[in-house]
Amino acid sequence: MPSENDDPRVDILEATYRALCQEGYAELTLEDISAEFGRSKGTIFYYFDSKADLFTSFLEFLYKQYADRLDEVSGGPPRDRLDSLLEVALANDEPAAGQEFRTAMLEVSAQAPYDESIQSELERFDDLLFEHFREIIADGIQSGDFDERVDPGLAAEFLVTTISGAQTRRVSVDRSTGRLVETITRYAELLLLDRRPGELSQ
Amino acid sequence: MPSENDDPRVDILEATYRALCQEGYAELTLEDISAEFGRSKGTIFYYFDSKADLFTSFLEFLYKQYADRLDEVSGGPPRDRLDSLLEVALANDEPAAGQEFRTAMLEVSAQAPYDESIQSELERFDDLLFEHFREIIADGIQSGDFDERVDPGLAAEFLVTTISGAQTRRVSVDRSTGRLVETITRYAELLLLDRRPGELSQ
Repeated sequence: MPSENDDPRVDILEATYRALCQEGYAELTLEDISAEFGRSKGTIFYYFDSKADLFTSFLEFLYKQYADRLDEVSGGPPRDRLDSLLEVALANDEPAAGQEFRTAMLEVSAQAPYDESIQSELERFDDLLFEHFREIIADGIQSGDFDERVDPGLAAEFLVTTISGAQTRRVSVDRSTGRLVETITRYAELLLLDRRPGELSQ
Repeated sequence: MPSENDDPRVDILEATYRALCQEGYAELTLEDISAEFGRSKGTIFYYFDSKADLFTSFLEFLYKQYADRLDEVSGGPPRDRLDSLLEVALANDEPAAGQEFRTAMLEVSAQAPYDESIQSELERFDDLLFEHFREIIADGIQSGDFDERVDPGLAAEFLVTTISGAQTRRVSVDRSTGRLVETITRYAELLLLDRRPGELSQ
């Protein structure tokens, strides 16, 4: 997340990102964020009403970046788009801080039942990924690439669930990404293609 | 988790369970646990060396219960065992406190990168479920019920990942269990059976 803008709001949101990666969600304070920002808490309160307001804005900021990345997956045959979407959804986008960021986001997920605004932001991420999968699968059925008996909504829900599990297990049991991406991609194709590929075990 | 025993250690671990459901992991204190236990912190320290020791013992206690539930899935055709295992792994075992408990465990998962003893306990849960799936799938291939081209290890890893995602999404975006159990069961069978069932979309 390079800091190449003149908008103090964006600087504060980027500082929030760095502070969150370093401290985790439970320990995150406005002091940490203002230290990363390099200016006073008062300046932060000039742009955001409260810590809760800042954090909701931060999730919206992440959402826009996520939406941009998902939107980059377009054009080409449905099967290629499916593979690209799986890669984007599973990828480690911030190599340096990837694990710290995923860990913090898992903490944030555990806050959802206690915080409606966090829950509704997380639902937007979930719905967006679901909608991208559903569309690709529906397109693939229409084009004859995917099995017409597949229900796009159910298949999309299944894939969103698996991706969520891959993110959780990377944090909780330190599973490597590469193998999961490969396994999930192969099984997703198997679910959607109109035949059984002959090389399930390779 | 009924309290029908004379072992104070077990009473303390059950009190830990109740306190964890009520307070969440970040807020959990020995005071909360001793209030649930109904006796002093001193008594807790008589049985456990430290809060960390208590919590590791608590995860071991949960592990044993989990192992017992998974072990109940035995006998019968591989396909029935697969369905039962999916149900047990996804089920809401503590209806009253289910969501609170899952939420607290998600918080605990986010602690894994910072706490080796938590991470190694969580890996035992993950490995155990993996091993149960792997065994059922291998048995099903041997009996001819499942497609012989399936790699039991890869398929088991995929299912463990999906189940982890179902647990996370039930907390983070409040997805209902019933629909996920049904979807996952249908897709798991689809992955393993030696033919394409004709009713993917029902």
